Amino acid sequence: MHKKLKLGMVGGGRGAFIGGVHRIASRIDGEWELVAGALSSDPGRAAASADDLGIAPDRSYASYAEMAKAEAAREDGIDAVAIVTPNHMHAGPAIAFLEAGINVICDKPLSHTVEDALKIADAVKKSGKQFILTHNYTGYPLMRQAREMVASGALGEVRFVAVEYIQDWLTEPADPDNKQAAWRTDPKRSGAGGCVGDIGTHAFNLAQFVTGLEVEAMSADLTAFVEGRQVDDNVEARFRFKGGAKGTLWASQIAVGNENGLSLRVYGSKGGIEWHQENPNVMTYTPFGEPKQILTRGGAAKIGSEQSLRVPPGHPEGYLEGFATIYKDAADMIRAGDGGAGHTPGIEDGVLGMKFIAACVESSAKDGAWVTL
Amino acid sequence: MHKKLKLGMVGGGRGAFIGGVHRIASRIDGEWELVAGALSSDPGRAAASADDLGIAPDRSYASYAEMAKAEAAREDGIDAVAIVTPNHMHAGPAIAFLEAGINVICDKPLSHTVEDALKIADAVKKSGKQFILTHNYTGYPLMRQAREMVASGALGEVRFVAVEYIQDWLTEPADPDNKQAAWRTDPKRSGAGGCVGDIGTHAFNLAQFVTGLEVEAMSADLTAFVEGRQVDDNVEARFRFKGGAKGTLWASQIAVGNENGLSLRVYGSKGGIEWHQENPNVMTYTPFGEPKQILTRGGAAKIGSEQSLRVPPGHPEGYLEGFATIYKDAADMIRAGDGGAGHTPGIEDGVLGMKFIAACVESSAKDGAWVTL
Amino acid sequence: MHKKLKLGMVGGGRGAFIGGVHRIASRIDGEWELVAGALSSDPGRAAASADDLGIAPDRSYASYAEMAKAEAAREDGIDAVAIVTPNHMHAGPAIAFLEAGINVICDKPLSHTVEDALKIADAVKKSGKQFILTHNYTGYPLMRQAREMVASGALGEVRFVAVEYIQDWLTEPADPDNKQAAWRTDPKRSGAGGCVGDIGTHAFNLAQFVTGLEVEAMSADLTAFVEGRQVDDNVEARFRFKGGAKGTLWASQIAVGNENGLSLRVYGSKGGIEWHQENPNVMTYTPFGEPKQILTRGGAAKIGSEQSLRVPPGHPEGYLEGFATIYKDAADMIRAGDGGAGHTPGIEDGVLGMKFIAACVESSAKDGAWVTL
Amino acid sequence: MHKKLKLGMVGGGRGAFIGGVHRIASRIDGEWELVAGALSSDPGRAAASADDLGIAPDRSYASYAEMAKAEAAREDGIDAVAIVTPNHMHAGPAIAFLEAGINVICDKPLSHTVEDALKIADAVKKSGKQFILTHNYTGYPLMRQAREMVASGALGEVRFVAVEYIQDWLTEPADPDNKQAAWRTDPKRSGAGGCVGDIGTHAFNLAQFVTGLEVEAMSADLTAFVEGRQVDDNVEARFRFKGGAKGTLWASQIAVGNENGLSLRVYGSKGGIEWHQENPNVMTYTPFGEPKQILTRGGAAKIGSEQSLRVPPGHPEGYLEGFATIYKDAADMIRAGDGGAGHTPGIEDGVLGMKFIAACVESSAKDGAWVTL
Repeated sequence: MHKKLKLGMVGGGRGAFIGGVHRIASRIDGEWELVAGALSSDPGRAAASADDLGIAPDRSYASYAEMAKAEAAREDGIDAVAIVTPNHMHAGPAIAFLEAGINVICDKPLSHTVEDALKIADAVKKSGKQFILTHNYTGYPLMRQAREMVASGALGEVRFVAVEYIQDWLTEPADPDNKQAAWRTDPKRSGAGGCVGDIGTHAFNLAQFVTGLEVEAMSADLTAFVEGRQVDDNVEARFRFKGGAKGTLWASQIAVGNENGLSLRVYGSKGGIEWHQENPNVMTYTPFGEPKQILTRGGAAKIGSEQSLRVPPGHPEGYLEGFATIYKDAADMIRAGDGGAGHTPGIEDGVLGMKFIAACVESSAKDGAWVTL
Repeated sequence: MHKKLKLGMVGGGRGAFIGGVHRIASRIDGEWELVAGALSSDPGRAAASADDLGIAPDRSYASYAEMAKAEAAREDGIDAVAIVTPNHMHAGPAIAFLEAGINVICDKPLSHTVEDALKIADAVKKSGKQFILTHNYTGYPLMRQAREMVASGALGEVRFVAVEYIQDWLTEPADPDNKQAAWRTDPKRSGAGGCVGDIGTHAFNLAQFVTGLEVEAMSADLTAFVEGRQVDDNVEARFRFKGGAKGTLWASQIAVGNENGLSLRVYGSKGGIEWHQENPNVMTYTPFGEPKQILTRGGAAKIGSEQSLRVPPGHPEGYLEGFATIYKDAADMIRAGDGGAGHTPGIEDGVLGMKFIAACVESSAKDGAWVTL
Repeated sequence: MHKKLKLGMVGGGRGAFIGGVHRIASRIDGEWELVAGALSSDPGRAAASADDLGIAPDRSYASYAEMAKAEAAREDGIDAVAIVTPNHMHAGPAIAFLEAGINVICDKPLSHTVEDALKIADAVKKSGKQFILTHNYTGYPLMRQAREMVASGALGEVRFVAVEYIQDWLTEPADPDNKQAAWRTDPKRSGAGGCVGDIGTHAFNLAQFVTGLEVEAMSADLTAFVEGRQVDDNVEARFRFKGGAKGTLWASQIAVGNENGLSLRVYGSKGGIEWHQENPNVMTYTPFGEPKQILTRGGAAKIGSEQSLRVPPGHPEGYLEGFATIYKDAADMIRAGDGGAGHTPGIEDGVLGMKFIAACVESSAKDGAWVTL
Repeated sequence: MHKKLKLGMVGGGRGAFIGGVHRIASRIDGEWELVAGALSSDPGRAAASADDLGIAPDRSYASYAEMAKAEAAREDGIDAVAIVTPNHMHAGPAIAFLEAGINVICDKPLSHTVEDALKIADAVKKSGKQFILTHNYTGYPLMRQAREMVASGALGEVRFVAVEYIQDWLTEPADPDNKQAAWRTDPKRSGAGGCVGDIGTHAFNLAQFVTGLEVEAMSADLTAFVEGRQVDDNVEARFRFKGGAKGTLWASQIAVGNENGLSLRVYGSKGGIEWHQENPNVMTYTPFGEPKQILTRGGAAKIGSEQSLRVPPGHPEGYLEGFATIYKDAADMIRAGDGGAGHTPGIEDGVLGMKFIAACVESSAKDGAWVTL
């Protein structure tokens, strides 16, 4: 009989945002059940949150350290832990669970410093366990199809990549009562990058995921448009990739009228594609000299192997389904004990993302000088 | 500690479509666990399907009758059964479970004849149990907002409603190996309506849901464009509503280029709205004489009480989340033991839908004469 | 040396709308110069309007009758007259100019009664002159391409046609000072049809133009939603075409949020097309089972012979250019002395349009009974 | 009686592209008649072209020098000359006509070198005549509305401007028989900038036109992606504006799937706007915290003074109408003998555009160093 894998969670108590998303994502395909947690550093909130979620009191822990130890010791201990704390609190639990021999699913960015990121990477290597980074946008079926199209040469040689991730929710100074805004604009918790770390890393990761291009050099300009803000709320970067392709990245949290405007455009010598996250079930593809085609998730020109489809074309899948695909991948990888199909974001992507943030900060401090990752 | 409700399922074994959708929908909000089933009339398939789904062998039943009896007798018996069989096999299990005192969640349309529909309605009344019909498109947040906007007078007096549900998957004769196509085009199993029953009822229900208008008379024209097809693959209808409003409905399964084109437009004396299911997170609203506004799910002009939001605006929710909202409603209604917020489709909607199919068939047979429901 | 043709105009003085459109359309391709006019029944306005337009005082006439006579007698008399008066004042000048041996370009609908329409048709026949009806939407390049695609079988056998023309400018009672609204809602001047005559005829004509289908029977429902309005402001019709195709037409002037929403969708056994006038440079085309294609005016999949292109794809042409194409056709036909390429709307289209209006009014009066044209 | 102004043309003979556009634009509003030309350096082609266009043989000149002299001497000489030759042949005729006391309408970019541009500017100053540069995209009504909205503070303080102009027609090496492609990729004729001069200048001009921001410093990266191409086919630039705003510009002629993708996005502290040239009759505007609005040309939220409207909203105006507005402005300015409303592109814009090209080339040669204009 098919058995669900057991999931624990660090962070994600009452009032949190991304923890709830991880929980829904873990449920969608019926591969996981949440059985343990260190849901908050506040003991009362931790217990109440566990109760809300049907976690037995004896598996609601006061700290991640205690949880790692206790779950590793149980016969029915968790198969993986999901780490959904702010950036600066990723390394501690990640290393603790890896050292306890437990697989890790970690929210992005990997950490708040490159140094901590490298420590996590080291722990992954030593542990031999699975490490999945929830760059969830790579779970969208059409992004997997795009990756396969690029790899198969449908676009010819890639020449230019333009990726954007623009929002407007930080157009004005953050409300101190808004927990999500507060930690994201505090460099102690978010790291040196504000917007660039929060969403720039998603954009960078997605461009990498689809094109597979390697950055040779990059130049960036970070700005804090809102008075008094300690981290950037807008970044634009320029890339030179190995082999001659070029690209740009623009991430902003002050672009009024954009809720969650992640988009990707890739142009090659034979074709181009365009995709917008807010309507993720369509992507346009133009073979040079022919009419533009509207490709739909699972539609007429689907490419089978890379797509994860739950419902037929025309029945929109969204953000949560894409996120769930990462959890489905994680389950498959853990059951198989191997690295999976090779397209699920992992530790290398996490380290690269941290280097990207650092490079942006460095280049911007040097007036946009070219730097390497 | 929050406990999940227990769900059973009739139909939905290997090879089925809508059963899987119900299961995902039931999982998304963490309110249900699937513990029992009569998943197929083929015993081997039933057992294998149960095993796939982690249902214990002693709760995998050979028939719905046996299941209703056994589950009613268990202390830990199911809280509700989901009926996901073809239309002509709804009445049997629905009545059996209601008579056993078990709540029912039933796929649409309610049945294959008005007669059977009325029998189910009678059983619901006698049982005093909850009956939820999964007209899932009413679970889309913006459709709930639209309903509230109409009710609040944002559109003034409604004058004209245009609802469409157009697809193209039956453009050619159905492949006999396509199980979904086979029963939908067989009047013995689908009922007298083909396209009108399969998707026309969704369109009709959605227009009713949003506007609350009552049909005074209607006229319809059904066509089977594909040679040899025994049921309609295209229907267009004209409505006169009480109070003077009018409307049209067009459903088709031969409109090439449309995957799942459900759309709703409502125009009143003071405003108009337009919505398309394939990109369900946006709806336009025009107050007469002002610019058209793009309303987004959970965005700037959200109307709180009617919306069920899992992720922020710009993070698209889709078909499965809308479906899940029906399951969330069902859970809330069952826990509370009452009829819920009054917007979840129920037995009356199911009977009305069956009368709508019958009226379409009757009017069309009479050359489009006006008929009543 | 290339010489411009000479144009006269009846109607279109200061304060008029469509006269100005005709003048721009006549200028765009440099084939016409406006040299004469009976621009208003008010002598002062006529003279002032002529002066505005650079028409010599001796060719500004007090009546169309005088103008027809005088221009026919001049050696440098006009090659054609444009009639841009309200519907009930088309027949008089049209017949007068035809009888004077002068070609006629006439605004639509042809007249305000079928009777008058037939008189004009008779005059055309007797005169042997060109008669062009400005159903300008047929001048859009993509509508000409659509017509050619249907004719060439790209859609297979046409099954269903859905044409709409929805606006909102008459949502409220017409302002008596709005000259355009005033005559259009006065049955004495507009004819028995309000919305159906003003814009329904455009929609009907466009569907005919593209598909070439012949109406076998039709049923219509006209409504005046605005209190006190003497003509319809909303019409929906149902068609049975010879050969088995069907269709619907919806025209409205109370659909809030629609400025000029003319759209056409045609579905056949092998493909479907969709086009919206407000963004007329794109049309989608789906060959069954393949991705939807975005065809652009003059773009990759253009069909040469039917397109009239002034600027490259991506440089949008609009309403005025489509209108100008009718004037270009008229010039070509007059220079050649023949019927042109056969796709320019003419007297037969005008008579058919009047029969369409009459059929709508008749069917609606008979509760939607099927009628013939 | 209203008299048309007299127009001459240099360049634009048979086989040319932009000359025909200028002619249509000059005709649309009935303010100009073409009476003279030096249409080609090839005498036979010049004469044949003049004949096509109805220009009297004695006003078809063999050279612009001869034409300037002769027309200046005629009592009925031209009011303005339109210069529509390749970039490197603008300065000669522009200066000749200005010195002859004739107003000049010149295609963009102003020249092929900054040096020549400054010579033209000097000639303009000395002559006291009107000089209009056809940055035609500023003629779109919604771009004039955008300019007025920014000026009125509807967006608050502008923070970020993103302008793009992407095409794909030079994705492959230029066909030597394609006259348009040939001179645009030949630095002797186009100047040092390829894509940046041809379309980058339009993008730069439009951003300036709408925002009025002054460039403090800029950095650019030019690329020739197609092997063997002597000028850039892709440029991206970064701007720092005086007062703290920033921006990016991307122009490309190798972005497969884009026909003429000029777009502008402006984000301020209180609102944002987005506009795409290929559907120029709509622009979105979001006041921060409110729903996004779809503004239409001449629609509900039009701003009157800046709009030039020929037909009602919903009746799309396009590229030619926008171009015609520049000609209308020119006519108004010449008739009034003054500088017009101040929004028509003139000599300063032309010089600034040439400095922009030079700055892009310089910065790119210096590895993206910040430069000034």
